[in-house]
Amino acid sequence: MVPPLRLGMVGGGRGAFIGGVHRLCARMDGQYDLVAGALSSDPQRAKESGAELGLAPDRVYKSFAEMAAAEAKRSDGVEVVSIVTPNDSHHAIARAFLDRGIDVICDKPMTTTVADALDLVQTVRRTGLVFGVTHNYTGYPMVRQAREMVLAGELGTIRVVQVEYVQDWLTTKLEDTGQKQAAWRVDPARAGEGGCLGDIGTHAHNLAGFVTGLAVRELAADLSRFVPGRRLDDNVHMLLRFENGARGMLWSSQVAPGNENGLRLRVYGEKAGLEWSQEHPNQLRFAPVGQPPRMLSRGGPNLGVDAPRATRIPSGHPEGYLEAFANLYRDLAEQAALLVPTVEDGAEGVKFIHAAVESSAKNGGWVVLAP
Amino acid sequence: MVPPLRLGMVGGGRGAFIGGVHRLCARMDGQYDLVAGALSSDPQRAKESGAELGLAPDRVYKSFAEMAAAEAKRSDGVEVVSIVTPNDSHHAIARAFLDRGIDVICDKPMTTTVADALDLVQTVRRTGLVFGVTHNYTGYPMVRQAREMVLAGELGTIRVVQVEYVQDWLTTKLEDTGQKQAAWRVDPARAGEGGCLGDIGTHAHNLAGFVTGLAVRELAADLSRFVPGRRLDDNVHMLLRFENGARGMLWSSQVAPGNENGLRLRVYGEKAGLEWSQEHPNQLRFAPVGQPPRMLSRGGPNLGVDAPRATRIPSGHPEGYLEAFANLYRDLAEQAALLVPTVEDGAEGVKFIHAAVESSAKNGGWVVLAP
Amino acid sequence: MVPPLRLGMVGGGRGAFIGGVHRLCARMDGQYDLVAGALSSDPQRAKESGAELGLAPDRVYKSFAEMAAAEAKRSDGVEVVSIVTPNDSHHAIARAFLDRGIDVICDKPMTTTVADALDLVQTVRRTGLVFGVTHNYTGYPMVRQAREMVLAGELGTIRVVQVEYVQDWLTTKLEDTGQKQAAWRVDPARAGEGGCLGDIGTHAHNLAGFVTGLAVRELAADLSRFVPGRRLDDNVHMLLRFENGARGMLWSSQVAPGNENGLRLRVYGEKAGLEWSQEHPNQLRFAPVGQPPRMLSRGGPNLGVDAPRATRIPSGHPEGYLEAFANLYRDLAEQAALLVPTVEDGAEGVKFIHAAVESSAKNGGWVVLAP
Amino acid sequence: MVPPLRLGMVGGGRGAFIGGVHRLCARMDGQYDLVAGALSSDPQRAKESGAELGLAPDRVYKSFAEMAAAEAKRSDGVEVVSIVTPNDSHHAIARAFLDRGIDVICDKPMTTTVADALDLVQTVRRTGLVFGVTHNYTGYPMVRQAREMVLAGELGTIRVVQVEYVQDWLTTKLEDTGQKQAAWRVDPARAGEGGCLGDIGTHAHNLAGFVTGLAVRELAADLSRFVPGRRLDDNVHMLLRFENGARGMLWSSQVAPGNENGLRLRVYGEKAGLEWSQEHPNQLRFAPVGQPPRMLSRGGPNLGVDAPRATRIPSGHPEGYLEAFANLYRDLAEQAALLVPTVEDGAEGVKFIHAAVESSAKNGGWVVLAP
Repeated sequence: MVPPLRLGMVGGGRGAFIGGVHRLCARMDGQYDLVAGALSSDPQRAKESGAELGLAPDRVYKSFAEMAAAEAKRSDGVEVVSIVTPNDSHHAIARAFLDRGIDVICDKPMTTTVADALDLVQTVRRTGLVFGVTHNYTGYPMVRQAREMVLAGELGTIRVVQVEYVQDWLTTKLEDTGQKQAAWRVDPARAGEGGCLGDIGTHAHNLAGFVTGLAVRELAADLSRFVPGRRLDDNVHMLLRFENGARGMLWSSQVAPGNENGLRLRVYGEKAGLEWSQEHPNQLRFAPVGQPPRMLSRGGPNLGVDAPRATRIPSGHPEGYLEAFANLYRDLAEQAALLVPTVEDGAEGVKFIHAAVESSAKNGGWVVLAP
Repeated sequence: MVPPLRLGMVGGGRGAFIGGVHRLCARMDGQYDLVAGALSSDPQRAKESGAELGLAPDRVYKSFAEMAAAEAKRSDGVEVVSIVTPNDSHHAIARAFLDRGIDVICDKPMTTTVADALDLVQTVRRTGLVFGVTHNYTGYPMVRQAREMVLAGELGTIRVVQVEYVQDWLTTKLEDTGQKQAAWRVDPARAGEGGCLGDIGTHAHNLAGFVTGLAVRELAADLSRFVPGRRLDDNVHMLLRFENGARGMLWSSQVAPGNENGLRLRVYGEKAGLEWSQEHPNQLRFAPVGQPPRMLSRGGPNLGVDAPRATRIPSGHPEGYLEAFANLYRDLAEQAALLVPTVEDGAEGVKFIHAAVESSAKNGGWVVLAP
Repeated sequence: MVPPLRLGMVGGGRGAFIGGVHRLCARMDGQYDLVAGALSSDPQRAKESGAELGLAPDRVYKSFAEMAAAEAKRSDGVEVVSIVTPNDSHHAIARAFLDRGIDVICDKPMTTTVADALDLVQTVRRTGLVFGVTHNYTGYPMVRQAREMVLAGELGTIRVVQVEYVQDWLTTKLEDTGQKQAAWRVDPARAGEGGCLGDIGTHAHNLAGFVTGLAVRELAADLSRFVPGRRLDDNVHMLLRFENGARGMLWSSQVAPGNENGLRLRVYGEKAGLEWSQEHPNQLRFAPVGQPPRMLSRGGPNLGVDAPRATRIPSGHPEGYLEAFANLYRDLAEQAALLVPTVEDGAEGVKFIHAAVESSAKNGGWVVLAP
Repeated sequence: MVPPLRLGMVGGGRGAFIGGVHRLCARMDGQYDLVAGALSSDPQRAKESGAELGLAPDRVYKSFAEMAAAEAKRSDGVEVVSIVTPNDSHHAIARAFLDRGIDVICDKPMTTTVADALDLVQTVRRTGLVFGVTHNYTGYPMVRQAREMVLAGELGTIRVVQVEYVQDWLTTKLEDTGQKQAAWRVDPARAGEGGCLGDIGTHAHNLAGFVTGLAVRELAADLSRFVPGRRLDDNVHMLLRFENGARGMLWSSQVAPGNENGLRLRVYGEKAGLEWSQEHPNQLRFAPVGQPPRMLSRGGPNLGVDAPRATRIPSGHPEGYLEAFANLYRDLAEQAALLVPTVEDGAEGVKFIHAAVESSAKNGGWVVLAP
């Protein structure tokens, strides 16, 4: 048995959502031990959270800076750190650990400015460290199957890409009710320049690129703030043009009643179409031209190599969000991380956000995404 | 019993698709008798088609002009004519009959130019005749239910409108194989300036307006011709801005493998969302904020007045495309046609096509749809 | 053009459900003219109903007996009669017309006793007349496709057949509210010995046999009356054994809240499985062993000869209950009625009802269905 | 933080399926540490499996008997043991640990004879130890929601229960190919008297009872062996009568092509119906009489107390089989195990299997399930 990796966490204290997800996913395959944390900017909450998680008291830190410094000195210090704080702090935290030779798993969007994103790209290239960005939807087996089919040419040249990520939880002004998850996501100081755009639109953008292998060359965006007084966009409409001439649309919304977490991707090529929906993630619809559509199934027949590798249980026993997310942790632990979004992918996401804001500011004019 | 209306038809000879649909729909409720026709521009085909349909030989005409003139003179002449020819001929045919006091049921798009469309609007206003445009998807009971719910305020102010109409039958260059339906639809001389845009995009535009009661104020379009050598667009991507500030997207494609006739509408307001799909038309998903989504059903509970009026059989006994289409004929026969698309709606569709072509020509710049 | 058949109708006056369906279906393809009727046992209602339908006053009859006698004498008398009355009268009416050389289209269950059913079989064999029983679900294109696939051996030997027909409209004691459709269906004097069993269970039985080509050899039934005071069964549970050794289950209910008209068939063989649901009738799921399931579509690729013949419009333009029902009328008119349920099929249905009642009376013991 | 429970495992060595599932589920919430195992009856495999799992060499045992004896003597011995071996060994293993005061989590069916099952019931009652049976489908949040709704009377008196558990993996004679999972499941010496019946039919039976709170009073079963030469049933058809007068059907099959792991439950009462399907487990359809059906969602609105307690992430982020299974481990760790199937439930399952075999042996006669 390979000994588990020593994992640290920044953020993710009591009441946080995504921190708990990261911990569960790190634990799922027994490949990580959480041994240290700077779990909250509130010292009391940090201490209590550390105790709840069974961390040794001397490895429950008051700040990420203290943690990075202390852990780097220990022979049994953390080998990798998960950053699960609001967006505005990602860059500084990531630098603190990278600069001390510690690998990083970072939430998305990776940073709030393109400059910070490019700085992380440089840092990772210079240090040769591992840096994974949790565009976690790439961990779904059938998403990887879709990617493999596109790359194998089963769709022929891609023509049309429709992607959407739609929720309803911000239909009312939830941020005024004290709901913590809502509050920071609509606050430009913490979330950055994108609201819905940065929170979920960037996942949609990443997913489209992951599956098709195509970069968005230019985009035209129309961002809206439908809820009166909201400080960031809560609906994103976007036209996309991909590098190979394919065209697409991206819709992202947090004000669409009846949509819980509706990430959906549809890709159409000369030879076939693929459709996938996150809320029923174990199926992938494959429609070759002139033939009846087939429903591919996680664990079922006619799959390639990537989906089976990302699967734990047989077909018909549904895997979900946590298993998909955990696949990123597993891949990183096994250094088989070719499919885990990289610091470059993270930077693409930040550029995407910036370009969309720019486009919308000039009334939806096309903005080129520099390579 | 009210005696059936005397119906004539222009176009719809042997081998045509939509002409047969019109005849079946006219016959469905026993309210029309087909008594005359100029069924084909090919005299031999016209004659044979008339015989097949049991028309009296003297009422099988060689041209619509001859038919309009002759029928207008008969005391038992046609009371209403259905125009089911390619788009370029609609205007002249409609004028020929309107000018002789005969009501018109006209296929969409209504004309190939905005000027012609406005001319028909003027003519109808001047004559006071009935003019229905077969944006037939408005005939679905659950579409009418959706409209009624929006108008009753059950969604609150509308914020987001997503509409798409997606097919795959032109994924390959079908027009080169002699397929008649394909050939004229991609020929600018017969179809007008829109391909996919005019053939089905205009239905999507009409449906969004019908249900929401909102006009598109401006649009930004990106039209593509993916199949090499195709002469008109086969994929339409569009951003929409509605008169009340709502935003939307319209996607229409005929090159999306795995999509047969995928007309789908999703409308989101402050208070609730609605989702409807033409391929399973008897259901309407209604999601009020903070409550579990409900599946309304044609013939089922909690409906308004319009859906039950447009229904022939109980819930669970699926009605389809033909019943919905026939509802337009029935409404027109019963002069209860408040829900049948009018000449003004037809003109809106033509303006929409023109504006989209214009927007795309200027690289997706916004074009205002004049009221 | 072939002149339309002269059609008469017994039953189906004002307020009836299925009579209107028959008329619409007869009219759909222009192959029948309704010219005579004994539309109600109430003379005033009969007269008014006839007028509403535009029948000549002298062909609106007070009784089926009068109608049969009078029409048989006319040179332009009815060629075929539709019987759409409650079950107890089918036999006498059918005999009245058959004995005068008039073809019959009869609702199901064909009769209320096995003896009457066998009498009709004898009469039809003796006279050589056409006799169709409206087990109308056999008219769905994808049901015919399923049958063709089974017969072609695409499933291999059939092992398991699961069929169900489930509704909810009798969950409460609707018959006490004056609802006419409910009242006669739960009255043994009019419906016969089966309630839910005869009304819809017999459709399920017919469908299973139609698609698989296999007769039920024996059955074990557990009939229930869940609504207190109800006089006939409202829920049917049944084990089936087919002639080839296949096993099955049949569930039929009218007290299952949330089910509108849930007729569903699933057939499994050595080589593949098929699944079809009446509420979404344009799709047929085909799952060959070891391959991803395929969704066959009415009008789509990979179909045989029967489904396309039973189809009016392209794929994606949903056809429904009325088109399927009309296929029986069309087939009978075109004397291409090999797929229309016959008097022998009707008799099988009556035997099935009787056997199920007998089995349930002896606590679910097996009852052999005599061939 | 509560320290993790010390967990042992019997069975689950290399190549096993369900052992790995148990370990993952035990690890999911950080409440168990696997510290000892008798992982295989093959000593070499046991040793290697233990090493792979990181167990201390002195706690990797050659037999369960050795393990029970040794662990009982340690002050840090296992507190609870998971039994994940083929059915025939469950009883002896369970006794070995129970007799030494160690809690047990046991796979289903609990034993291969009713006598053994009753012996475990007695032993558990005598010792007061915790004994959980992994009828794991009870761990799904929406299954618990369904149960809570039934118990709260939202369906009124239950009338009809339809349950099925359908797979296709044994459509061919997989047991002859060396597939280990298949081999023991169709071997009466290891699986007991039920094949499909014991493997999955018993889950269906348990689920129906869990949700409705109703015991099956009597059953009539028709078991089949469709694959030639198979030694145990591969298809189960059954009529059910519940203690309150409700009727039901149970279908279980492993020879139904196109079904992966199709566990479905439908429950109908006087006031409403509920429908749930394991392959899309995050939704629960609730249909109150006279109202549109509602789709309840894990994490969504209008839920009771049990579903939210069994949930880790927000709605729309699908949870699956592993999370549901892990809920049993979590509940047992938290001694909040009121919803975890007990030794009595396990015994009910064994009686159910026996009664079904008996019924089928007497040609489907009713067999009373003794209380």
